[in-house]
Amino acid sequence: MASINAWDSGAIKDYEHVFEEFGLSKFTEYNLTDSYLFKRKIIVAHRDFSKIADAIRHKKKFLQLTGIASSGEMHLGHKIDVDFYLLFRKLGAKSRFSISDIDGYVSRPDAKVPSMAAAKEIAVRNAADAIALGVPPSEIYAQSNMPREYYQLTYEVSKKITNKMFEAIYGHTDLGKISAVLLQIADILHVQMPHMFGKAPTITGIGIDQDPHARLTRDVAKRLDYDFEMPSFFYFRHLSGLKEGSKMSSSEPDTAIFLKDTPEEVKRKISRAFTGGRESIEEQRKTGGNPDVCKVYEILKFHNPSYKFVDGTYAECRAGKLLCGECKKNCIAFLNAMLKKHQEKYRKALPEARKIVYGK
Amino acid sequence: MASINAWDSGAIKDYEHVFEEFGLSKFTEYNLTDSYLFKRKIIVAHRDFSKIADAIRHKKKFLQLTGIASSGEMHLGHKIDVDFYLLFRKLGAKSRFSISDIDGYVSRPDAKVPSMAAAKEIAVRNAADAIALGVPPSEIYAQSNMPREYYQLTYEVSKKITNKMFEAIYGHTDLGKISAVLLQIADILHVQMPHMFGKAPTITGIGIDQDPHARLTRDVAKRLDYDFEMPSFFYFRHLSGLKEGSKMSSSEPDTAIFLKDTPEEVKRKISRAFTGGRESIEEQRKTGGNPDVCKVYEILKFHNPSYKFVDGTYAECRAGKLLCGECKKNCIAFLNAMLKKHQEKYRKALPEARKIVYGK
Repeated sequence: MASINAWDSGAIKDYEHVFEEFGLSKFTEYNLTDSYLFKRKIIVAHRDFSKIADAIRHKKKFLQLTGIASSGEMHLGHKIDVDFYLLFRKLGAKSRFSISDIDGYVSRPDAKVPSMAAAKEIAVRNAADAIALGVPPSEIYAQSNMPREYYQLTYEVSKKITNKMFEAIYGHTDLGKISAVLLQIADILHVQMPHMFGKAPTITGIGIDQDPHARLTRDVAKRLDYDFEMPSFFYFRHLSGLKEGSKMSSSEPDTAIFLKDTPEEVKRKISRAFTGGRESIEEQRKTGGNPDVCKVYEILKFHNPSYKFVDGTYAECRAGKLLCGECKKNCIAFLNAMLKKHQEKYRKALPEARKIVYGK
Repeated sequence: MASINAWDSGAIKDYEHVFEEFGLSKFTEYNLTDSYLFKRKIIVAHRDFSKIADAIRHKKKFLQLTGIASSGEMHLGHKIDVDFYLLFRKLGAKSRFSISDIDGYVSRPDAKVPSMAAAKEIAVRNAADAIALGVPPSEIYAQSNMPREYYQLTYEVSKKITNKMFEAIYGHTDLGKISAVLLQIADILHVQMPHMFGKAPTITGIGIDQDPHARLTRDVAKRLDYDFEMPSFFYFRHLSGLKEGSKMSSSEPDTAIFLKDTPEEVKRKISRAFTGGRESIEEQRKTGGNPDVCKVYEILKFHNPSYKFVDGTYAECRAGKLLCGECKKNCIAFLNAMLKKHQEKYRKALPEARKIVYGK
């Protein structure tokens, strides 16, 4: 048990093993949309996704909840959560986006998030990032700025979890982290409350290492005094870090491209990124590179919607025509163009973001 | 450790032992008011009461928080909490009275409080009792109907308590009961929040078996990111149950006189109550009764403000002039007159109580 630790930032290699151990289903609905997020198989597994696929196909009501825990600046890994959110809302989901500021404070050490005041300032920046990426402000909420029904739900959840359940799932019973879990469960379920959208299938996209939360949420959903539909989950691959074998993580800034990075920082980080290049130019021309292990290619695959560009990069790398230096230049140009636009939108979004966190 | 269990309903006999073990101070400020609650030494101990005595004497700002956990109907034991509340507000405390409905739900077994909906209905009745006893409706709140700052505080508290602290104090780590403690701590501290009354000495009256909460609350108060004054506590004797050696408890209805009891129920219960009477009338005429162990006398001492009546009862009992039968009749008449008035006020208070719990 507990081989998936929801707070571990190491990359998970053996997905199939995880499916078997925890009873996830392999994702197969790749034809549901034309989005590159589906076509490039960034989703790998699910729990109970058929209800959602059915709702999408027959234009029936379904809900979506996604969140970002406010413990630092958003990076390209977080952008994937947002991209999935934007996709499912386009597919018809009534959606809410949580900026999890209380979660960010209670589950992180003081050295990282020293106070609720600090968590709220991070939340403002996260909300501005979400708005800049395309999430309508009316769909975004901060955990600290919710109606009381939400907090009541967190406490009702606490009565349905025993310490033993918690310890079996997470291997510890840290109170701050327990609080974070109560809030996360309430986030996912509150969209079905009577004052919100009411009972309906609900989808939440998470990294596969977050599955313990998903199982606990589904277990609790059944036992609460509400008529909740069991929530569905899809699991996507984490964008790995820029170094070999790492996960993109705020805790290790040089593994990540942050949405606020300057063109110089992007250039520096991508230039140093681990690639699938060979020992020498000669060898690479002859045998081709290996995009399947390349961090630069991975960024393009997760973030560049152009099939022509991304598939072209893959083919030319394999053929030994595109070398790492040029490819990195392309990636830097792509990222800097994207981040420039984003950063402009971010600045404009800040006043709106402030309202989301602090109220009017 | 853990010889005081905050949820144990057995009576505590050895107060002195408890003082020593837990570092409480003996209460001595009996001349602060003329109230029978002080004069009859119903307060036995305190933590940091000198700040409060000083505020009362020099008419400086101080605050009060008292609460009732909504897990059932209020009885005479709860009335003492309310009587102390009314006394301290008369002495100048800016006061808030918590109807702890979330606490009532999360800390009690489902058999007792099956849902939040049930807890809220109990809360309405508790609030109506409090209003009928004289608490202004504007000072009463239900935990489930609070501004979000309050809930945020409960989560900030959760970060400051470790599981080990909790286990050391309470001997268990039941999540529902942990939640109840977080809420209780927030109840006591929230009156000092900027949107409430601001920093000031705060007094809360509790039964001595609740001291673990007090110690934890004081410990947490120091470590939160607010400028809180360490809260003060006074400890009063619990009204004991009508049977020998019992505590007045909702869990055992025949140990308690409930505020909604009919005249017949009061008559039945008082008639069967344990007294300090002797084996025979002859013996009692000769040696006198023992009011110090008598449940009937105890009720008068805790609830009848008339010194003439209560001191007279004591003297005449000791002298063998007043026998148990007559004394019980007097007590029944006193209680039924009091409860009749209370029940009329209670009925009128219900609409206001409903607003407190559910909003307008």
